[in-house]
Amino acid sequence: MSADSIASDRLPFVLHRENVARYENGVVVIGDRRKYPFEKVFVRCEDVESVARAIEDMVTQGGGQWVAAVYGLALAARQTHGTSVQVAIEHLEMAAERLIKTRPTNTSIARMVRKALAVIKDALESGAPLEAAILEWIERTRDEYYTRVSKMGRYGAALIADGDGILTNCFAESSFLLALSFAERDGKQIRVFTPETRPYLQGARLTAPSVHEMGIPVQLITDNMPAFLMSQGKVQKYFTASDLVTMDGHVVNKVGTFQNALAANYHRVPYFAFSLGPDPKKPDRASIVIEERDPAEVKNIRGVPTTIDEIDAYYPAFDITPPHLVSGVITEFGILNPYDLKHCYS
Amino acid sequence: MSADSIASDRLPFVLHRENVARYENGVVVIGDRRKYPFEKVFVRCEDVESVARAIEDMVTQGGGQWVAAVYGLALAARQTHGTSVQVAIEHLEMAAERLIKTRPTNTSIARMVRKALAVIKDALESGAPLEAAILEWIERTRDEYYTRVSKMGRYGAALIADGDGILTNCFAESSFLLALSFAERDGKQIRVFTPETRPYLQGARLTAPSVHEMGIPVQLITDNMPAFLMSQGKVQKYFTASDLVTMDGHVVNKVGTFQNALAANYHRVPYFAFSLGPDPKKPDRASIVIEERDPAEVKNIRGVPTTIDEIDAYYPAFDITPPHLVSGVITEFGILNPYDLKHCYS
Repeated sequence: MSADSIASDRLPFVLHRENVARYENGVVVIGDRRKYPFEKVFVRCEDVESVARAIEDMVTQGGGQWVAAVYGLALAARQTHGTSVQVAIEHLEMAAERLIKTRPTNTSIARMVRKALAVIKDALESGAPLEAAILEWIERTRDEYYTRVSKMGRYGAALIADGDGILTNCFAESSFLLALSFAERDGKQIRVFTPETRPYLQGARLTAPSVHEMGIPVQLITDNMPAFLMSQGKVQKYFTASDLVTMDGHVVNKVGTFQNALAANYHRVPYFAFSLGPDPKKPDRASIVIEERDPAEVKNIRGVPTTIDEIDAYYPAFDITPPHLVSGVITEFGILNPYDLKHCYS
Repeated sequence: MSADSIASDRLPFVLHRENVARYENGVVVIGDRRKYPFEKVFVRCEDVESVARAIEDMVTQGGGQWVAAVYGLALAARQTHGTSVQVAIEHLEMAAERLIKTRPTNTSIARMVRKALAVIKDALESGAPLEAAILEWIERTRDEYYTRVSKMGRYGAALIADGDGILTNCFAESSFLLALSFAERDGKQIRVFTPETRPYLQGARLTAPSVHEMGIPVQLITDNMPAFLMSQGKVQKYFTASDLVTMDGHVVNKVGTFQNALAANYHRVPYFAFSLGPDPKKPDRASIVIEERDPAEVKNIRGVPTTIDEIDAYYPAFDITPPHLVSGVITEFGILNPYDLKHCYS
């Protein structure tokens, strides 16, 4: 592996490989991103249902979801020990379905769980020990993941100029933070602005402390401020992760991403989304499922109510940025044109 | 007075005339909008400095500021009892300056305090009792205010169509709420979406409960959602108040107003700002002073921290929407073209 691919060591606490999620002899240990940075705690899951609920309850999110989910499938594989092949397959398929239905918008959970299921079925056919086979595959896949996000980080860093103010949204995870780290190592002075990302405050709780931990100047703002900062000339680049990219270049990400992209477009600030690749099963906008979460989550902040009980609320968790507002999709293969994805990934 | 001008009775609790602010024999009693709707309490101020601090600390905001400020000047007038004319004038001018410098962006405080000061000086010249003279002027001005906002509410209501979804931002006060009330009385079915307005949550705490109190359906959202709601076709009109309108049609209002206006423009949703008129001393964008408040206010919500202490933050309290994004400025004289204000008000 190249030096750049040993990415986990460069990353802040929340993104250290073992702090995202890990497997400890029949227990899935997930870093609790709801409590960070106030507490550095982990949720321990001993069965598939617990892992599924942890994902639904947003113990982890973004790039942590598929990792927790495939470890959940390892738990299911462990539980098939001593059963017939048919019972094992039924059990594993039920587990996979449960894990996939946790969050409908980010389809990486579904894609990775289906890949993991195929690996287990192969082991089942060849008579190999299931738990060991799937864990070996997961660790190898995670190695590859860090190599891929390192490449994405390198491409991202190359887009950053000395003196840039950088806007992000939500928690753009490893590839974004590596881009910042590489840019800084290359001697570029940068400054990051992170909207707090209501209602869960991923920007305030995960992004701002992580960027700060890396020694890069960061200012926290509220979600209503990005356009004004752009009008002040404070922002030169806008970067986010993506929960899903469609084959025709729509970027689905945490709600707020789209309105920031509109403001960026107005102010001629380029917008780049990091992606491990589009979902081949998601051709276009119509195929996207936007998760609507419990409105009660909008009405409080870290447990403190923001209004009175009788007020109704609405909570779409993601939004959709059309390709004409996306300057580039940063992948391990380079900075792709959002209109060109179907050629690159077919 | 026409039925429509008896506006205060139609308005929800926070905007009842006596709940905005009132004068009780040497005490200015200000409705505490920081605590509403969790507590219906008032801050009692017995001197100018207390009134100024209450305005700075956002006990009241928006249309409540100038009312509290001119009552503050009544306190100063009362305190001059028995002093020489010269001492009185000096005392009153100092009080006026203190009240004016509380908030730099919304210039209605300055304009109304200067008018009030002129009224007191006239009384001083004619030998009339100062406190009585200024209080008489304030109550008459408040009467006129409700007549004016009623007219604005009527014009606003005429813009609303049956079935409209209406987006607002922050707390758009009497004229907006009267527009909703008139539209509803005219038999129009409407639905309001109110962003929570971080960091002070005016949308969650003031707007949503007030609209709900008026019996109109309202849904609370977070500040990162307006553009997505527009993309879903949920929003047909966007209305806000304005803290300041320049003579060349720039609308200054609570931060977030501008990025919602950008999203509205993209989705062909018209944006209307209520205004008692532009400030003749504010010709253009360059003349606007955007208040930057203590960054610590961004890092908590109702006293609960949103991130760790060592994180830096930035808090511009207002933003600027240029005239090409403003479909109309709703005044007592009708729905004016933002480019035409200088002709209407010169």
